[in-house]
Amino acid sequence: MNIIDLRSDTITHPTTDMRQAMFEAEVGDDVFGEDPTVNRLEELSAAMTGKEAGLYTPSGTMSNLLAVLAQTRHGDEIILGDRSHIFLNEGGGAAAFGGVSLRTIPNNADGTLNLELVEQAVRGKNIHYPVSTLLCLENTHNFCGGAAVSAAYTAAAAETAGRHGLKVHLDGARIFNAAAALKVPVRELCAPVDSVCLCLSKGLSAPVGSLLCGSSEFISRARKLRKMAGGGMRQAGIIAAAGINALETMTERLADDHDHARQLAEGLATIPGWTVETPQTNIVMFTPRGDAEELVNRAAAAGVRLITIGPSQVRAVTHRMVTAADITEAVERLKKVVENR
Amino acid sequence: MNIIDLRSDTITHPTTDMRQAMFEAEVGDDVFGEDPTVNRLEELSAAMTGKEAGLYTPSGTMSNLLAVLAQTRHGDEIILGDRSHIFLNEGGGAAAFGGVSLRTIPNNADGTLNLELVEQAVRGKNIHYPVSTLLCLENTHNFCGGAAVSAAYTAAAAETAGRHGLKVHLDGARIFNAAAALKVPVRELCAPVDSVCLCLSKGLSAPVGSLLCGSSEFISRARKLRKMAGGGMRQAGIIAAAGINALETMTERLADDHDHARQLAEGLATIPGWTVETPQTNIVMFTPRGDAEELVNRAAAAGVRLITIGPSQVRAVTHRMVTAADITEAVERLKKVVENR
Amino acid sequence: MNIIDLRSDTITHPTTDMRQAMFEAEVGDDVFGEDPTVNRLEELSAAMTGKEAGLYTPSGTMSNLLAVLAQTRHGDEIILGDRSHIFLNEGGGAAAFGGVSLRTIPNNADGTLNLELVEQAVRGKNIHYPVSTLLCLENTHNFCGGAAVSAAYTAAAAETAGRHGLKVHLDGARIFNAAAALKVPVRELCAPVDSVCLCLSKGLSAPVGSLLCGSSEFISRARKLRKMAGGGMRQAGIIAAAGINALETMTERLADDHDHARQLAEGLATIPGWTVETPQTNIVMFTPRGDAEELVNRAAAAGVRLITIGPSQVRAVTHRMVTAADITEAVERLKKVVENR
Amino acid sequence: MNIIDLRSDTITHPTTDMRQAMFEAEVGDDVFGEDPTVNRLEELSAAMTGKEAGLYTPSGTMSNLLAVLAQTRHGDEIILGDRSHIFLNEGGGAAAFGGVSLRTIPNNADGTLNLELVEQAVRGKNIHYPVSTLLCLENTHNFCGGAAVSAAYTAAAAETAGRHGLKVHLDGARIFNAAAALKVPVRELCAPVDSVCLCLSKGLSAPVGSLLCGSSEFISRARKLRKMAGGGMRQAGIIAAAGINALETMTERLADDHDHARQLAEGLATIPGWTVETPQTNIVMFTPRGDAEELVNRAAAAGVRLITIGPSQVRAVTHRMVTAADITEAVERLKKVVENR
Repeated sequence: MNIIDLRSDTITHPTTDMRQAMFEAEVGDDVFGEDPTVNRLEELSAAMTGKEAGLYTPSGTMSNLLAVLAQTRHGDEIILGDRSHIFLNEGGGAAAFGGVSLRTIPNNADGTLNLELVEQAVRGKNIHYPVSTLLCLENTHNFCGGAAVSAAYTAAAAETAGRHGLKVHLDGARIFNAAAALKVPVRELCAPVDSVCLCLSKGLSAPVGSLLCGSSEFISRARKLRKMAGGGMRQAGIIAAAGINALETMTERLADDHDHARQLAEGLATIPGWTVETPQTNIVMFTPRGDAEELVNRAAAAGVRLITIGPSQVRAVTHRMVTAADITEAVERLKKVVENR
Repeated sequence: MNIIDLRSDTITHPTTDMRQAMFEAEVGDDVFGEDPTVNRLEELSAAMTGKEAGLYTPSGTMSNLLAVLAQTRHGDEIILGDRSHIFLNEGGGAAAFGGVSLRTIPNNADGTLNLELVEQAVRGKNIHYPVSTLLCLENTHNFCGGAAVSAAYTAAAAETAGRHGLKVHLDGARIFNAAAALKVPVRELCAPVDSVCLCLSKGLSAPVGSLLCGSSEFISRARKLRKMAGGGMRQAGIIAAAGINALETMTERLADDHDHARQLAEGLATIPGWTVETPQTNIVMFTPRGDAEELVNRAAAAGVRLITIGPSQVRAVTHRMVTAADITEAVERLKKVVENR
Repeated sequence: MNIIDLRSDTITHPTTDMRQAMFEAEVGDDVFGEDPTVNRLEELSAAMTGKEAGLYTPSGTMSNLLAVLAQTRHGDEIILGDRSHIFLNEGGGAAAFGGVSLRTIPNNADGTLNLELVEQAVRGKNIHYPVSTLLCLENTHNFCGGAAVSAAYTAAAAETAGRHGLKVHLDGARIFNAAAALKVPVRELCAPVDSVCLCLSKGLSAPVGSLLCGSSEFISRARKLRKMAGGGMRQAGIIAAAGINALETMTERLADDHDHARQLAEGLATIPGWTVETPQTNIVMFTPRGDAEELVNRAAAAGVRLITIGPSQVRAVTHRMVTAADITEAVERLKKVVENR
Repeated sequence: MNIIDLRSDTITHPTTDMRQAMFEAEVGDDVFGEDPTVNRLEELSAAMTGKEAGLYTPSGTMSNLLAVLAQTRHGDEIILGDRSHIFLNEGGGAAAFGGVSLRTIPNNADGTLNLELVEQAVRGKNIHYPVSTLLCLENTHNFCGGAAVSAAYTAAAAETAGRHGLKVHLDGARIFNAAAALKVPVRELCAPVDSVCLCLSKGLSAPVGSLLCGSSEFISRARKLRKMAGGGMRQAGIIAAAGINALETMTERLADDHDHARQLAEGLATIPGWTVETPQTNIVMFTPRGDAEELVNRAAAAGVRLITIGPSQVRAVTHRMVTAADITEAVERLKKVVENR
């Protein structure tokens, strides 16, 4: 039985083209700034996001960490959603490594934050308060079911933040999914923000890496912080070569993943007692009848791998290594799992 | 015109008895552990809270900071209310000085936290998550209108925390107000928790200081952290003498402050368009008609000092230096302020 | 037998005048900036050190911590002596609470740092290096035997630092001893530096507190950090009143302590096999024959209290509570201790 | 003119065999622990160093950072050499990200630390002191001219550390060079220490990565810290494949680099006025006549790339991409540079 792995799009393997690109990659020592492939990838990412400069990092988590640290001072407070990846899944790194407090606002189901609440969360000038310096957004919004957030909302949020002197960072780990869903260029989604990170190793299928983009001054500071955190790699051009291939050839096909997600959602919705959110991109969130953990274990035994999000919700993610036929098969298997309970 | 200052009970001056006690205080070098008055105060606080040991600190903020740092590791996460003093008014010190993340739960109006939400907020064991190690409660709850929280609730919260391996710290800056309102001994309110701090310089009228109480091992670690933070004072017996006087003579009279708070609330409730919360202790929260900031400024001009809590709420705090006649006068002045608008 | 306590000048008790001043002190809530006595003390300290503003803190350790944190960013490096109090005796607070690295230079015996070594320790601009932002000096220099450091040296050090863009902080816990020894006003010793702290509770005999002085902008930032660290006290005017008395009446008499230190050094030098450094101020460092710890224990049993500094050195400090007769007696007792070995 | 690049062995490009291994690498999502190639590399490193477990990280800097953070608590102090890479060239990360103080001991020319000085640097138990928890060694010692440190010294150092309750971390970025020079297995050099890191991307020529090895419990904690720091990579098996090739095929040839270093040192020693240290491994440190920076710039113009270490010293590193003929040519070019001055 083939395993249908819907846990995450991070599991995607590099394509043969990527392997070929890595085999042939021209490299140098990137700590000295001499890896031509890394330099090309960083320039490409800057061009695609419409920023002055880019920085290649080992992971989205490091990109987000550097973005927060480079745009705050020790003791500052940042504002972000209570379902954001930075708050929920990055190990408390901003506080641990940067002395930064996180102030959460409840995320709306569509991945946005109520801007009135954001405004109320900004600290006044008072000796008792940390200084509010950064607003963090996320697009697509992972734990809001892969919601794609519009450029208009992003602009409004940035306007609110700017009015209070806050900068804006966008966790765009899946920003290409947002662009595909909204049918707008990535750079339009990034235009309102000061910094943005994007991931190569999720739907885009590259093996390793993320890019952090922003002003040259910001990237210069982030580059130093990357060295401090141990993210400076030597002949990183090898893996960067796959990243260039990913940015150049893999963004168009994300629409297929979105189609498969819709197909999956429709299939799951036919299972009695299950509540399925309509996916906007490649993430399907659903609430099965009964315990989520138990369902996930039984599904795994039947060859369908899923992940729980909290005690009652389950997440399925479509990606390049899952076909429409796999989706059909996955639904069949899950139906049987439920029937045989 | 005499000023009626209702901004906070922190403004209370020491009594003549306290000044006399300070004049006569026997002192030594407390960094060497040789100040007999400090030692006596620390023992007294431990006895009153029912803990093994106590530690004298310059402020409630330092007590809370030491409590968090001594009971977490760098990178851990603590759970606390979104209206808690530690989260709102202590400068982000836990993250800045201890690398600790704060996870907030919405405070109920009565100062408690929904224990189901607390339970959901505890992190599972996962490489992506910080470790949850501490639950922080507050009693009375300042920004929940001085709400007194029962020993039964505290015990239930501690039971929930303990089930998940979390310790519990109680910010008891006004724990004597809670004891007076609930008519239970302070030690009963502190019994379920691992650490508690109490303030001498609020309703109890001592000039300076707070006490942090807990197990001997905990206090030993907090004592070292106090030195690191610069809270080790030399002949602190001077101010500790006023603290002993406060603990021995000032706790009974807090009931008067509570009476005055009720008198004030009733008076304010007669002003058309104002919403006044029924006070449980010495804090009165109300929502005037119109802008809170403007009301506070106009009240100050009329000799009544108040503080805004957010854009629409105002806080008044009763204390030893305000009499029943002052309350009557304050209400009269505020009525005129409103009429003359 | 009366105990002659030479462990430290921190053990000095407040005078009756100080107790009277504390009894009568006019107070307010200093967190609101309304304590007139604290305000007066802060202004007095600023005037005496020739700086724009002063800040009252609970201890010299807190003053130094705030000075470092307010003049660095998280991740920076400061340069200081390897026998400095900040490096040796302040619990690693700069790294723990501010993320700041300490780079030590060997202290010369006279408390200075070789300025060529300082210059070599300044980091160049390189992605691998922390940024050097602060040079810390100490005067008098505690663990260099109370050495008084000249204004000329301080100016030269500040010139070196300034040439590389570093600010200079002076740990002047005993700056009044330096001024007395060098017969120059304190403000002359402080003129070259950006920030200076001085202690009230050492030779000046006040019970509690230290002052941090510098530019208004610096003090404003330090005030906020003080609140974060829990150093904001309420009616601190009580203890500040003793501080004013100390600054106004106790600085002249430090010359007596220096005389007593010389008397002590001469006496100890007559003990066979002991090496005694010639004291410049109130600190006498000596190397007894044999184990320092054992000598200190035997001296204590004979009614003379001393402190070890490392495995072979012993420190004796003179202060207001030790008379010339006490010194004579102490030497006699130590002689007997040695003879009876 | 071909460039002879002696700046560092980090500039080495992957071999064709490594590229082939990467092309063929079997991969999985290493954040889920499912990358078989990464798992194999980690097991191989553990076996070679004689430790229970290994962890693949993006850089030696990250390995060292994780080693320090996993073996200390916030506020602790570590002891290390004043010419160590961790102190000099890792951006102050231990203090910035872990709140850890660094206490330096002067390095001996042979890369060791005087163990009496280490012992004196261990802090006693005192409220004023940070806790000493870790001793860091380095082998080969980069800024001590690539000195190879014997297993006997390492054992003695570990014995000293252990006697005081300190753990020992070995920065073994070039531990294979040490093993080659000393003709002992790597595991013998690592046996006395608690943790060790080794680099794949220096003399071993792999493009990216380092391994941190130690007990299973230690690696489990380091793995979590790696995630927090953003060092968790997805299909890292690609670059890990080159790492396996490096460990299996590149360690033997390091002896050639050492021969070339000796050849280079002998050649440079014939230049009048130059002082050249005798190399033990692949690093040649020399002091040219005149300004080091100027010499390095002129050498670069003549096609020989070197690096300054401080104002007067220059470093040359031999590696796989430099042949004996290149060394001969480099010496000729440098002679001409000096003659044409």
